[in-house]
Amino acid sequence: MKPFFELQATDPDTGARAGMLHTDHGDIPTPIFMPVGTQATVKTVTGDQLVDLGAKIILANTYHLYLRPGTDLVAEVGGVHRFMGWDLPMLTDSGGYQFFSLAPLNKLTEDGVSFRSHLDGSKHHLRPEDVLRIQAEIGADIIMPLDECMPYPSERKYAEESTSRTTRWARRCRDERGAVFSHHDYRQFLFGIVQGATYADLRRRSVEELAALDFPGYSIGGLAVGEPKREMLDLTELCAGLLPRDKPRYLMGVGFPEDLIRCVARGVDMFDCVMPTRNARKGTLFTREGRLVVKNAAFARDFTAPDTECGCFTCRNYSRAYLRHLIHVGEPVGMSLASIHNLYFYLDLMRMMREAILEKRFASFQREFFAKYRMATD
Amino acid sequence: MKPFFELQATDPDTGARAGMLHTDHGDIPTPIFMPVGTQATVKTVTGDQLVDLGAKIILANTYHLYLRPGTDLVAEVGGVHRFMGWDLPMLTDSGGYQFFSLAPLNKLTEDGVSFRSHLDGSKHHLRPEDVLRIQAEIGADIIMPLDECMPYPSERKYAEESTSRTTRWARRCRDERGAVFSHHDYRQFLFGIVQGATYADLRRRSVEELAALDFPGYSIGGLAVGEPKREMLDLTELCAGLLPRDKPRYLMGVGFPEDLIRCVARGVDMFDCVMPTRNARKGTLFTREGRLVVKNAAFARDFTAPDTECGCFTCRNYSRAYLRHLIHVGEPVGMSLASIHNLYFYLDLMRMMREAILEKRFASFQREFFAKYRMATD
Repeated sequence: MKPFFELQATDPDTGARAGMLHTDHGDIPTPIFMPVGTQATVKTVTGDQLVDLGAKIILANTYHLYLRPGTDLVAEVGGVHRFMGWDLPMLTDSGGYQFFSLAPLNKLTEDGVSFRSHLDGSKHHLRPEDVLRIQAEIGADIIMPLDECMPYPSERKYAEESTSRTTRWARRCRDERGAVFSHHDYRQFLFGIVQGATYADLRRRSVEELAALDFPGYSIGGLAVGEPKREMLDLTELCAGLLPRDKPRYLMGVGFPEDLIRCVARGVDMFDCVMPTRNARKGTLFTREGRLVVKNAAFARDFTAPDTECGCFTCRNYSRAYLRHLIHVGEPVGMSLASIHNLYFYLDLMRMMREAILEKRFASFQREFFAKYRMATD
Repeated sequence: MKPFFELQATDPDTGARAGMLHTDHGDIPTPIFMPVGTQATVKTVTGDQLVDLGAKIILANTYHLYLRPGTDLVAEVGGVHRFMGWDLPMLTDSGGYQFFSLAPLNKLTEDGVSFRSHLDGSKHHLRPEDVLRIQAEIGADIIMPLDECMPYPSERKYAEESTSRTTRWARRCRDERGAVFSHHDYRQFLFGIVQGATYADLRRRSVEELAALDFPGYSIGGLAVGEPKREMLDLTELCAGLLPRDKPRYLMGVGFPEDLIRCVARGVDMFDCVMPTRNARKGTLFTREGRLVVKNAAFARDFTAPDTECGCFTCRNYSRAYLRHLIHVGEPVGMSLASIHNLYFYLDLMRMMREAILEKRFASFQREFFAKYRMATD
């Protein structure tokens, strides 16, 4: 059997890597961007459109699916792939981020998390083992142990306690069923999540303790939560540099196109972010030249493609003026077409990066991209 | 050059007809259902999805496009087809219905209509000639003269005056540019609209006066506005029976699947209605067995296809439980998948009717359909 992760190439000038993840729902070339399908769908984009865009893996959210439609319902039909008619790989996060950001009255102890549903106020208590079971039943190919994603800034003392606890929780999950197991009729891979807030030594300790547990992959969590961009990049570089070379590295919740490039250069293999879809719904497109607020009146009579160099369905068929009209008058198709473009832009960017890495020219790719791409102030 | 309309078959037992409309954007087999794309898009469904569904012509709304994005903008890019990236035939209504139903402070005189925009309160006065020019610039293949769609019930005296005025307006439009003209680089066909409220003699007079003006096609307007279903069917039968045999007949704004069948049986060739898309967005599907309120909790664990006999994208890939979940949690993809199914159901119903007519077995098709289809109380 193929290993879960194959490292295929490393860039001579940067930390960038190209690889391949093998899951029972298919292979995933890395570096990869994973569109976010919080409630068992990517917002405003259908499954066949995602396949057409070249998406190889999508995310779903454990907290949301646990509440609606409910874990047992998803399990009853054989897991989330079957529930949502998606045959390619999937990943679920632990829900940790949502327990703390969405649910009111949450409380955290060594035992686990207590919270009230943001929907109906119902009380829930979940131990790390429960979150593991929930994700086993939901059935994504790649799953996460319960972790605490600390806010920025976090006190040193709290960060130390929290990071140790996240690691202890990861060990409890691993001890429960092993780091690779089959709940349905295919394998599920459990990652370890590196925390440590903005403290380099805590990040280092977190990596070391998790690496000793030998997970099939590692997530870098707790970044892009408000810290300066420089700090995010440095901590990402630190963690990636310490993590085992032969395991995939997933930087959770990051980010803008420029962040993806800079973090690939620092050795990250996997990304997810609501940025492309959320921005699309609000009328902002990502293009080769930077962000384009297509909903602005300035584009009302601009009959050119959103991004003239883009090969996506939206850019091949529709103008800025038409997108502006649809978003202006509140037609959901406008959000769909903009989401299709932004996801294509992200996925295409990852494809171009992978090609550049395989051809050992990532540094020049990066220079060329930034020569053209006008960044918004971070 | 082919005639605009070819009558291809008539059913021996009913008034049902099969034909073909020839426009410069393509042919339209009749009987046909035309999905409604009010604001230059069918709500929640993209153009390529409509083509996949087999849509041959779609509607846009003159009142809405006149206000947003504005007639001049649509004209500037060469018409609504180019604006919205739709290469197949299109039809615009006159906006008459919206002037009276949406716009406040509207006023009607022999000269035309005055109204305030429902968006910003701005004042507008449009003569029939203006509405014709607006539609010429918007550039649909089939267009409508300004008419008054009377409410139900309407006083006899008012109905008489209004119907005559609608006919005079139709003549003014026809006199302006002829019933077939080219504003862009293709032909546009102007229909006459039969009114007359619920008065058989007024309907008869309306048909006769309009027929004398020799329009390329005729619309039956002012029905399905609240009158009993029986009356709608009888008046449709009356109008269709009086209209020229060699011209297409378009029953505006009708209706449920059962209405489509009963009105095809009465000689109608063309339909439009927001029913399939609006119901879809609210979580109601049309199936071979009748209406299915898929958003109901009863379907939460129903993992069968929405309509097990249906070949649409939604039914081939998704379950009632998944659709119920998406609509329940408010994901726009749920509205898209439901709209795709409902439009397919309507379009497929028209294809089956056409086939039955061509094979001279429409009456038995109708019996078989109604044996299975459970109607909601009208």
